[in-house]
Amino acid sequence: MMKQRSFCTSLWQCYFEYSTPKILVIRSFKVGTLNRFTQALVIAYIIGYVCVLKKGYQDTDTVLSSVTTKVKGIALTNTSDLGLRIWDVADYVIPPQEENSFFVLTNLIITLNQTQSRCPELVLKFTSELTPKSPPSGVQTGKCVNYSADVKTCEVWAWCPLEMDAEPPVPPMLGDAENFTVLIKNSIRYPKFNFNKRNILPHVNTSYLEHCVFNRITDPDCPIFRLKDMVTEAEEDFQTMAVHGGVMGVQISWECNLDMPSSWCVPKYTFRRLDNKDPVNNVAPGYNFRFAKYYKNGDNQETRTLIKGFGIRFDVMVFGQAGKFNIVPTLVNIGAGLALLGLVTVVCDWIVLTCMTKKNLYMEQKYSYVDDFQLLSSETP
Amino acid sequence: MMKQRSFCTSLWQCYFEYSTPKILVIRSFKVGTLNRFTQALVIAYIIGYVCVLKKGYQDTDTVLSSVTTKVKGIALTNTSDLGLRIWDVADYVIPPQEENSFFVLTNLIITLNQTQSRCPELVLKFTSELTPKSPPSGVQTGKCVNYSADVKTCEVWAWCPLEMDAEPPVPPMLGDAENFTVLIKNSIRYPKFNFNKRNILPHVNTSYLEHCVFNRITDPDCPIFRLKDMVTEAEEDFQTMAVHGGVMGVQISWECNLDMPSSWCVPKYTFRRLDNKDPVNNVAPGYNFRFAKYYKNGDNQETRTLIKGFGIRFDVMVFGQAGKFNIVPTLVNIGAGLALLGLVTVVCDWIVLTCMTKKNLYMEQKYSYVDDFQLLSSETP
Amino acid sequence: MMKQRSFCTSLWQCYFEYSTPKILVIRSFKVGTLNRFTQALVIAYIIGYVCVLKKGYQDTDTVLSSVTTKVKGIALTNTSDLGLRIWDVADYVIPPQEENSFFVLTNLIITLNQTQSRCPELVLKFTSELTPKSPPSGVQTGKCVNYSADVKTCEVWAWCPLEMDAEPPVPPMLGDAENFTVLIKNSIRYPKFNFNKRNILPHVNTSYLEHCVFNRITDPDCPIFRLKDMVTEAEEDFQTMAVHGGVMGVQISWECNLDMPSSWCVPKYTFRRLDNKDPVNNVAPGYNFRFAKYYKNGDNQETRTLIKGFGIRFDVMVFGQAGKFNIVPTLVNIGAGLALLGLVTVVCDWIVLTCMTKKNLYMEQKYSYVDDFQLLSSETP
Repeated sequence: MMKQRSFCTSLWQCYFEYSTPKILVIRSFKVGTLNRFTQALVIAYIIGYVCVLKKGYQDTDTVLSSVTTKVKGIALTNTSDLGLRIWDVADYVIPPQEENSFFVLTNLIITLNQTQSRCPELVLKFTSELTPKSPPSGVQTGKCVNYSADVKTCEVWAWCPLEMDAEPPVPPMLGDAENFTVLIKNSIRYPKFNFNKRNILPHVNTSYLEHCVFNRITDPDCPIFRLKDMVTEAEEDFQTMAVHGGVMGVQISWECNLDMPSSWCVPKYTFRRLDNKDPVNNVAPGYNFRFAKYYKNGDNQETRTLIKGFGIRFDVMVFGQAGKFNIVPTLVNIGAGLALLGLVTVVCDWIVLTCMTKKNLYMEQKYSYVDDFQLLSSETP
Repeated sequence: MMKQRSFCTSLWQCYFEYSTPKILVIRSFKVGTLNRFTQALVIAYIIGYVCVLKKGYQDTDTVLSSVTTKVKGIALTNTSDLGLRIWDVADYVIPPQEENSFFVLTNLIITLNQTQSRCPELVLKFTSELTPKSPPSGVQTGKCVNYSADVKTCEVWAWCPLEMDAEPPVPPMLGDAENFTVLIKNSIRYPKFNFNKRNILPHVNTSYLEHCVFNRITDPDCPIFRLKDMVTEAEEDFQTMAVHGGVMGVQISWECNLDMPSSWCVPKYTFRRLDNKDPVNNVAPGYNFRFAKYYKNGDNQETRTLIKGFGIRFDVMVFGQAGKFNIVPTLVNIGAGLALLGLVTVVCDWIVLTCMTKKNLYMEQKYSYVDDFQLLSSETP
Repeated sequence: MMKQRSFCTSLWQCYFEYSTPKILVIRSFKVGTLNRFTQALVIAYIIGYVCVLKKGYQDTDTVLSSVTTKVKGIALTNTSDLGLRIWDVADYVIPPQEENSFFVLTNLIITLNQTQSRCPELVLKFTSELTPKSPPSGVQTGKCVNYSADVKTCEVWAWCPLEMDAEPPVPPMLGDAENFTVLIKNSIRYPKFNFNKRNILPHVNTSYLEHCVFNRITDPDCPIFRLKDMVTEAEEDFQTMAVHGGVMGVQISWECNLDMPSSWCVPKYTFRRLDNKDPVNNVAPGYNFRFAKYYKNGDNQETRTLIKGFGIRFDVMVFGQAGKFNIVPTLVNIGAGLALLGLVTVVCDWIVLTCMTKKNLYMEQKYSYVDDFQLLSSETP
């Protein structure tokens, strides 16, 4: 029939052809109910999960962030080594600035007036084995000298006098640090949506900022945090943590639905301890490091004050995702949803053609056969 | 007919069965045009958006990066406190090295020769309320002493003399910092494709690197940046920003199509100010921090020079995504595209069976019925 | 037939309708084999790639991490400038603490007793061009003074004496740093699964940790690393690298399948050099920076020791992905797989209807026609 027509006409005709599958409609209580129930499940999944929960109609972007911090507070210590001493921000924040992190000194072992010279090695933990496995604090000269009246130890070339590597003082020397406050300034950007925001919200005014302190219930928008409050929210005790130090995570979450008013996009603060505080298998628990202040005395000889500083490092972690309506993911999700609806037919077909009493009737109506088996049968359908 | 054959033969036969849906072809100008138009839309979307714009045939990887920076430059200041003074890189970069960031001091309030002692508290901003809400700079001893001839204030134990927490000098003390240059070395890696590259491109030679300065038009490949140029590109004024400090983002973008020659994969630099400069609700605008240099004087007493340093922190942010042809995402995207083509039939069917004049003819041809309703009718199809 | 019934009944009936496509089954060796082969390919892809390799049935989460480091070791140097000198952790780790990174000094050029004063500029590299392109180390006063007996140079106001910016010493001054060890404590979290783990594994006890050193074969779980071992694993020579410094990446990978016992989730350490060591087009190869220690001498004049420090910066990079069974991605992947199975029909149809000898028979059986062309023909199907 087609062969007589010219190729051109055939192409023309083909262009206007629309192919649609032939459908068998089965009218049955059981099958129909099964069909609608499965469809309802899939549609509920698509609408409930994909659209509402996962917001599949939105394009998303992850946050870019910049953090600056400023600690305030004064601590007073009174020790035999140092006498009465005031500690201010230049003394206890080390290094003075970091990118997304700040460290506050809370406890210390101080060794004054060290010089490069010779001195006897320290005698360590007599309770342990005989060989003192202390980390070497200097290079042995090969001589043995009196450490005390009745003990002789090897002489070392080192920064002398050596640090007495004992347990840190309890209570912590800068326990007052619990009342220090920190101003955390965080400005974020979602580049795909050209959306910028700060954690100092527009409705907050300068006079409020000058005296407020963050409180989850009464002052949830204040970007000034008392150190003790942060530690307490992480269910830790500040004074205990201050002895050996530790690492705290200050998590700022910016989950924003930019289809909503931008004033709904606000930071959410949570606090978590990041290091493990007292598992059995731990070396160097807490957080500490050694640093020194270098001086020159009258005769131009270098001396230093060695400080083993224990303290809390606060890591500010900013994360979040913003979503905004976009036609492309919407189409993709609708497409994927309709593809899933195709599964309904697969499932129902299988049940209809294997479990129903009238399955042979359905099968006859649904399937036609073209037989090409020379081996098995010769009849044509 | 089937029942007589053995199960084995039936399975064998089943193995060689191929099921294909029966199709009704409708030849019509209207329906055909609608069909082809919808198909064209979907295909244009798949090719245009998925393949060309989003490069759906590519596997992607995000960048791993390592950054080192080196600032160069000399500034000269002349103040009553310090006299003539040269500032070099060891003086104005604090701390001397950071991971992805560097800070350049541009302005400062210096307090010389502080010692731990007693002194009268400062009298602050008489314009504000009567209670001086200044941050405490020390611990009150309980005595009242003469601050000046006619004003008495509380005595504090502190690092004395106290810092005069005034506004920073204008023009900024290290305004010369605008001519400092910074060499930013950035080497990146796309681990999935085992692809490494540096921001010092292969065609750039050492003698060029020794004197070049980045310029978007004339020297776009030079990795040495003048600080003022970076600030100017972010549409800020360096001298203004230098007074109170601020935070700049140096964004290096490595968007690479690795199906193209690797020499096409080059970094793109952009600069942006990250902190908000002058909104109304701001505390501590700009960027500053306090640090101290500690000395011991002749009689072994500790003194310090306290510096409230204002300056610009440059955060180097490296991001990017590389794509390379891979068979798996190609297949997934072709599959998803064909699934979308299935939608065409859904849309066209709906229009054909509800809007066309001959809809009953089409419906009769497309649908057959098997009726299983005992309630409604008793006829079998 | 339908028209007489009320709308309500029709809707009711429609609710219980189940539509299923009519299928033509072709029984043929060639077509059947083709069909099953294509199906097998798609199923193998789905099971093998999506389920087994990509674990498509799992929900995934990326790692949150916290890192602290602690370097141990002592180095001894003996130079004409400094005499015999011990270097401990407070001397060679600069700054004393960083977030995900630590720097170990391995070589240095030291300039002692600098003061703010006037001195003659240095004469540089006579081998290069006549114009000495040295970076300015001070501000020229405009006078010319004797640099040596027979050379005159410009006088500068600077930190004098000027640093002799020569090549760093070979062998490196702190070559002993190769035996330093570093304890890296890393605790990670997969927030979506509320899963925490440390790189100090539960079966490792404290006494083992006190003396172990990481070795890929004998001690793969020890979190204490010898610096030389790390550099050697990156196929670099420590003593060579120590001369000019460099940047090392310590990569900790936490790929976890949380459907398995959590004890199978262990960190994997790899080491890589991040900077390029000796390409031709390089400025300032290696890694170095300048820092200073400030002193005051007897008459309250500020002096400083300038150190150009060369060393190795170790960047600790933690990455990883955890997966755990979740019903949603499982459904999505099964759906996508079945959609791909739909492609099999498309491919087979095309082959059957264009290449087979009996294609006209198949076509007749598969397609029915409704013709709506007034132009081309007037017959109805």
